Amino acid sequence: MTQPLSSETLRLGLPSGSLQQSTIDLFGRAGYRISVSERSVFPRIDDEKMSAVLFRAQEISRYVVDNIVDCGLTGFDWIVENGNENDIVEICELAYARASSNPVRWVLAVPEESAVRKLEDLGGKIIATELVNTTRRHFAARNVPVTVEFSWGTTEIKARLLDAIVELTETGSSLRANNLRIIETLLTSTTRFVANKSAWSIPWKREKMENIAMLLRGAIEARAKVGLKMNVPQARLAEVIAFLPAEKSPTVSPLADTGWVAVEVILEDKQERELIPRLKRAGATGIITYPLNKVIP
Amino acid sequence: MTQPLSSETLRLGLPSGSLQQSTIDLFGRAGYRISVSERSVFPRIDDEKMSAVLFRAQEISRYVVDNIVDCGLTGFDWIVENGNENDIVEICELAYARASSNPVRWVLAVPEESAVRKLEDLGGKIIATELVNTTRRHFAARNVPVTVEFSWGTTEIKARLLDAIVELTETGSSLRANNLRIIETLLTSTTRFVANKSAWSIPWKREKMENIAMLLRGAIEARAKVGLKMNVPQARLAEVIAFLPAEKSPTVSPLADTGWVAVEVILEDKQERELIPRLKRAGATGIITYPLNKVIP
Amino acid sequence: MTQPLSSETLRLGLPSGSLQQSTIDLFGRAGYRISVSERSVFPRIDDEKMSAVLFRAQEISRYVVDNIVDCGLTGFDWIVENGNENDIVEICELAYARASSNPVRWVLAVPEESAVRKLEDLGGKIIATELVNTTRRHFAARNVPVTVEFSWGTTEIKARLLDAIVELTETGSSLRANNLRIIETLLTSTTRFVANKSAWSIPWKREKMENIAMLLRGAIEARAKVGLKMNVPQARLAEVIAFLPAEKSPTVSPLADTGWVAVEVILEDKQERELIPRLKRAGATGIITYPLNKVIP
Amino acid sequence: MTQPLSSETLRLGLPSGSLQQSTIDLFGRAGYRISVSERSVFPRIDDEKMSAVLFRAQEISRYVVDNIVDCGLTGFDWIVENGNENDIVEICELAYARASSNPVRWVLAVPEESAVRKLEDLGGKIIATELVNTTRRHFAARNVPVTVEFSWGTTEIKARLLDAIVELTETGSSLRANNLRIIETLLTSTTRFVANKSAWSIPWKREKMENIAMLLRGAIEARAKVGLKMNVPQARLAEVIAFLPAEKSPTVSPLADTGWVAVEVILEDKQERELIPRLKRAGATGIITYPLNKVIP
Amino acid sequence: MTQPLSSETLRLGLPSGSLQQSTIDLFGRAGYRISVSERSVFPRIDDEKMSAVLFRAQEISRYVVDNIVDCGLTGFDWIVENGNENDIVEICELAYARASSNPVRWVLAVPEESAVRKLEDLGGKIIATELVNTTRRHFAARNVPVTVEFSWGTTEIKARLLDAIVELTETGSSLRANNLRIIETLLTSTTRFVANKSAWSIPWKREKMENIAMLLRGAIEARAKVGLKMNVPQARLAEVIAFLPAEKSPTVSPLADTGWVAVEVILEDKQERELIPRLKRAGATGIITYPLNKVIP
Amino acid sequence: MTQPLSSETLRLGLPSGSLQQSTIDLFGRAGYRISVSERSVFPRIDDEKMSAVLFRAQEISRYVVDNIVDCGLTGFDWIVENGNENDIVEICELAYARASSNPVRWVLAVPEESAVRKLEDLGGKIIATELVNTTRRHFAARNVPVTVEFSWGTTEIKARLLDAIVELTETGSSLRANNLRIIETLLTSTTRFVANKSAWSIPWKREKMENIAMLLRGAIEARAKVGLKMNVPQARLAEVIAFLPAEKSPTVSPLADTGWVAVEVILEDKQERELIPRLKRAGATGIITYPLNKVIP
Repeated sequence: MTQPLSSETLRLGLPSGSLQQSTIDLFGRAGYRISVSERSVFPRIDDEKMSAVLFRAQEISRYVVDNIVDCGLTGFDWIVENGNENDIVEICELAYARASSNPVRWVLAVPEESAVRKLEDLGGKIIATELVNTTRRHFAARNVPVTVEFSWGTTEIKARLLDAIVELTETGSSLRANNLRIIETLLTSTTRFVANKSAWSIPWKREKMENIAMLLRGAIEARAKVGLKMNVPQARLAEVIAFLPAEKSPTVSPLADTGWVAVEVILEDKQERELIPRLKRAGATGIITYPLNKVIP
Repeated sequence: MTQPLSSETLRLGLPSGSLQQSTIDLFGRAGYRISVSERSVFPRIDDEKMSAVLFRAQEISRYVVDNIVDCGLTGFDWIVENGNENDIVEICELAYARASSNPVRWVLAVPEESAVRKLEDLGGKIIATELVNTTRRHFAARNVPVTVEFSWGTTEIKARLLDAIVELTETGSSLRANNLRIIETLLTSTTRFVANKSAWSIPWKREKMENIAMLLRGAIEARAKVGLKMNVPQARLAEVIAFLPAEKSPTVSPLADTGWVAVEVILEDKQERELIPRLKRAGATGIITYPLNKVIP
Repeated sequence: MTQPLSSETLRLGLPSGSLQQSTIDLFGRAGYRISVSERSVFPRIDDEKMSAVLFRAQEISRYVVDNIVDCGLTGFDWIVENGNENDIVEICELAYARASSNPVRWVLAVPEESAVRKLEDLGGKIIATELVNTTRRHFAARNVPVTVEFSWGTTEIKARLLDAIVELTETGSSLRANNLRIIETLLTSTTRFVANKSAWSIPWKREKMENIAMLLRGAIEARAKVGLKMNVPQARLAEVIAFLPAEKSPTVSPLADTGWVAVEVILEDKQERELIPRLKRAGATGIITYPLNKVIP
Repeated sequence: MTQPLSSETLRLGLPSGSLQQSTIDLFGRAGYRISVSERSVFPRIDDEKMSAVLFRAQEISRYVVDNIVDCGLTGFDWIVENGNENDIVEICELAYARASSNPVRWVLAVPEESAVRKLEDLGGKIIATELVNTTRRHFAARNVPVTVEFSWGTTEIKARLLDAIVELTETGSSLRANNLRIIETLLTSTTRFVANKSAWSIPWKREKMENIAMLLRGAIEARAKVGLKMNVPQARLAEVIAFLPAEKSPTVSPLADTGWVAVEVILEDKQERELIPRLKRAGATGIITYPLNKVIP
Repeated sequence: MTQPLSSETLRLGLPSGSLQQSTIDLFGRAGYRISVSERSVFPRIDDEKMSAVLFRAQEISRYVVDNIVDCGLTGFDWIVENGNENDIVEICELAYARASSNPVRWVLAVPEESAVRKLEDLGGKIIATELVNTTRRHFAARNVPVTVEFSWGTTEIKARLLDAIVELTETGSSLRANNLRIIETLLTSTTRFVANKSAWSIPWKREKMENIAMLLRGAIEARAKVGLKMNVPQARLAEVIAFLPAEKSPTVSPLADTGWVAVEVILEDKQERELIPRLKRAGATGIITYPLNKVIP
Repeated sequence: MTQPLSSETLRLGLPSGSLQQSTIDLFGRAGYRISVSERSVFPRIDDEKMSAVLFRAQEISRYVVDNIVDCGLTGFDWIVENGNENDIVEICELAYARASSNPVRWVLAVPEESAVRKLEDLGGKIIATELVNTTRRHFAARNVPVTVEFSWGTTEIKARLLDAIVELTETGSSLRANNLRIIETLLTSTTRFVANKSAWSIPWKREKMENIAMLLRGAIEARAKVGLKMNVPQARLAEVIAFLPAEKSPTVSPLADTGWVAVEVILEDKQERELIPRLKRAGATGIITYPLNKVIP
């Protein structure tokens, strides 16, 4: 059994658990095939200059700082919780992990029926959270003395047994379903691609990380976009182009049939559903849309 | 816990159960992201002017009539069973729910060894079905008195315990595997997109429903199609184009290399597998095919 | 219950088990929709001139020889094991079944701590394998007398209970994890599309099999490729094209904006991830990549 | 495929679905081994004078009346819903299906925030329920006109979309979790063992059904009981016996060691946990408890 | 990684797969706790003089002969198939593996519609089976030349593609469901506990195997039996005892209350369900039955 | 949504996760039925003077100290880790959670190939563990400076990425399978039933907890024991009794047939399997064994 993270390679820390599959899919669309075997934490990656390991998102920034890996993907929340903000290089932000691309929030919440109205009302109380350090610092900064206890997994029910919780929420719906009331937001977080400082100073590693960042961003960008092609009568081209979002420059190609041109454009899928009915009414024919792997502007 | 179907939105009823995932996938290809959380019947949809709820397909037309939702997707069979044909607007037919795009049939069936040969032989007998009202009306119209009993789920075995069943079939293979014989078809059904009449009379709701219908049909159309591109020697262009289905007008673009042109065409995937070997033999090179999200002619 | 493999059709044997889903997906990308119902070994295929049956990969070559099916997909290892090499037509090799496209190997292995160093050291010993005939022939050819016992499923543990095993391996990692040492390779294998000899002599069947082979190979080819489009300033076109792999001839199309051209090329996804950062630095804009279904050069 | 419910046997209808496993377990403890094969609704039973079929609990009373089966287990609620109370023989009540042995209730419920306070406030409103007939009769008897709509499966959410529901509850906790308020109880129900009237009049069938009823009740009785044995000093026997529940007559046996007697008694498991500490303090030794299969007083 | 089957222990081969759990349960009731960890074929057993390994039932007799294990549990069919009948010691027969305790049969079967009526009609045909050697010997003994092909897993469908199958059946129901007709039975089989001949000649191993056999048989015997206790008036004791099966001698104990005696008897559970109603009518009270772990007459 | 842990009841903390089912089973055999509904952390318990909540084992001692619950079951390791040893009352030790009843150990382990031989060699290194506080205290007490990092879940792989781990082991087999070497044991742990100090001072709560402890211990005691009954000829009674373990006093009862006595004894199941063959040879007949729920000596 040998060390699978060779120092000859760019060593990459990937989040296991709920983010694992979406991360592997993202790399797949970016051009890297990662395959995980059931019994191993070392995924195979089809680039001989890279190696990878799966850690919990909570741990990754620590192992980047410890130089166990050169770089990794993790949440800003866990970077802050581990106190690693100043000890790593943030290569880029990546919004890929959720149905929506909204950031998540860590909020202080109490039962609907609680008398607590503001953070200061919690002096002397017990608060359960998985984000212990951040919560302690937040209360200390306000000079409100509290006991903060580490709580594994979902804490909703503890808001009722103890006094309050600090819990992760995306839309607030799980908190509402548990009849909890949000007092305030402690931290807003998204996923980050981060590097070890000494790895960042090695030129080939840095270039490789920058390339990966470009490809990952291109793959994320492509997720909410589609390619659209249509045939437009030469006479109505200006009218059609006026519908298209201003920032896009469509590719207009001549066709064999000289009365018509082919127009191709990349659109957000939300725009697409508004535009297609209008384009059709404006005389476009043969409208098709197709999926994209990557969009790099 | 508040009412999630705001009257400010277009309220959409979606079928839960066996159609749920294929319906969500269809909307996805049409440009609408719908996400279902495990414990809620209210999916989230990425359009702030829309809200959605999951019902069983059997119920949706009733809730469209009751004005609980503005529109919904359901089978023609359940519209008829609920007696709602005249109380709703049928926006369009959608053939997306099955491996094949054939309609389903509700058939009257008896055991292979039964003496029953035609519907009239069933006078005085007991028939099990989930489609009670339709079956009763069908026998009443023929003046054949029968007892029709509601039967949950698969009824095949009841054809043997009682006298006959009225059951759903697509290819008849499940009936044959149970050694049942079809006497006749009572009803043929496909999926429909239907609207509440008063919602249909509100202009912004009607336009939105028409747009959704166009996008859904475009997404269904695209499922059995592919885009095909190839490079063709200018000299053989006419010969190649002659192979292509007459109704298609290929997009022919000039190439930098003037002896060649690029030809692009949208094909049904069944045509594609016949055409590609012929195109290759006719001199086409660099033939590629790619998947489509939407095709709007 | 009737015979579902009509002699009017091209009768196709498909491997069940671990290869089943990837084979069906491959045919799907090639343009054939195959649907398997849970309780039947006869998948439906959307071509009325074809019928299909699922067998274990180990059996398929035998049933091709027995004329139960006209053609089938199976591993070269099982063709050899069944002694069918000379009794079938090999239409083509297909590398689709694995994460990597490397062939698999059947290797002779012993425990790390065993005194056995070469095949000849095994005289008089017991060897467990699923590939009994091939192993017997291999040892007989070397005049080393051994007892070869059939072993169901994974044999790793038997290397320790008996004396040696002949086992399938792709990367050797499972053998290493079991502390086994490879003595030598007996057979290297990939998937093959094979035909019955008399079926091959029937013109319409042969043409159909050749077409299927072309489409399957096109679909495999497409798996590791993407389409890439970009806009390039006319002035830098030569520089950009110089980056592209020599064997590729990009499609260059004029654009309405005369200072620019559209360039489209098909790339391997491994090339893509190296090229995109370079193309962008060379002035390309609007770079997108999109997935492919088939690539036929 | 032959008729598996021979009229030479006692034909038994068993509930499929959520009650299926607990019913089979109950028969097992009563002495009848019932085995269900995955693809058949006809379980095998190790008594050649019996045959069995699985139906949904909702249907069983109808098939008892139709003489498809001689007897069956079903809920009182579905007997009432089907209007079969007067057309069947109720052999006995059986409290086996739930964690607790409390009956279930069908209750009328509205959202916590609804203005409805009593049944009469629902005039003109829409009510969703699986128990359509019973609900209609209940409102009709009070002269309150309502629309009652059949609703598949859980209806909690419909209380919020329509006006009220009639839903099954055991402890009310699911209703509370959905913030619903109970207006009144329409029906209280337990499981019943019921017979077809003509089957009941056949002596051997009636005797068999009575024996089955005795054994099923004995098995249910045993579930909440244990056997307890202990050795007690002759001198303290009266004291110990005084602790035991009055209605129980313990079996007192002499022991070889004449200063001691063996005492054996059947207890409810709730009594047991109170008694054991007291018995030990009163000098009992070697206290053991053991599980029971059947208790017939 | 060391050899876990020490020659200091009694090495036991246990069947993996469908028999695994019932075998472990049987040993559990016999007094041996066997625990299987997910990734190992070497179960732990709470007797330091024993070690165990899981093999497929098909292989066990071979490994007993090869002296890999001292003893094992396997089917008589696989002993015969492997040709090991004369090379092992059969310690005892064990009927534990099935819902019923009937032996299984390997039968020759053809499609219902086949012209084949007797074995001799199959001359020159192809037969699929997992029991290749036994089938070949059976046909050879009748001088009927056939091709016998090994078939993995269920062969029902192959009866239709080839000419006949030799398949395992317990009740024949799966064959009937596939519309197959049985021609004749080739082999009847039950589970056997078998030993290696040299292990059997070692006194401590032989005694241990005999003890295990006694305990396993005692555990099997107990499965279909229950203990029954009741209080009987002294005056009716003879009458009650007359009901009990002749071969049983009940334990009659005096009670403190001199008019009554306690009667305890071990019964088969099928007898129990007939007896209990009669005993109750004969005046027995406080009838209880309880489960047994082992019965050794 | 109300507070389900009423202060009128004995509030019990139960471990969720891997111990949950075995804990509920244990209480079941002790006489308390606990039922867990899927979406709630508040199990129902059939004693109106008790209420229960599920927490992770890691948290329970903290919530006992915080007076959220009156008592709970947790591991000694987590009591120590939380620093709660002196702030709670330990009611009793309970060995129920494992296949064997051996305690678990937290051990310091390094890769087989590491140069580290003793704890002191780890100065300046990084150690991963879930038991952070205990590990820090252990190293501090030896004056060896190390960095201890919290690691979620299994840490085996981290022994190879960092320098060492402190991990839980029962038999050491998982460590061996990962090629890790144990340096020393930091802590040995079993499950404990613990109480809040103020709850312990309330007489009715204390009595209830003592009774529960007695019943739980009785249920654990019964798990590895069976009841054995046999008939013995009066003449050989002394001989038979001499076989039985000295500490057991069998219950000897006269039988109606005066030449025989009934002997009943409680045995450990390991003794049973040795004894039964000997008892049978000594003339005992009608030997049966039966399962026990509770044994209180």
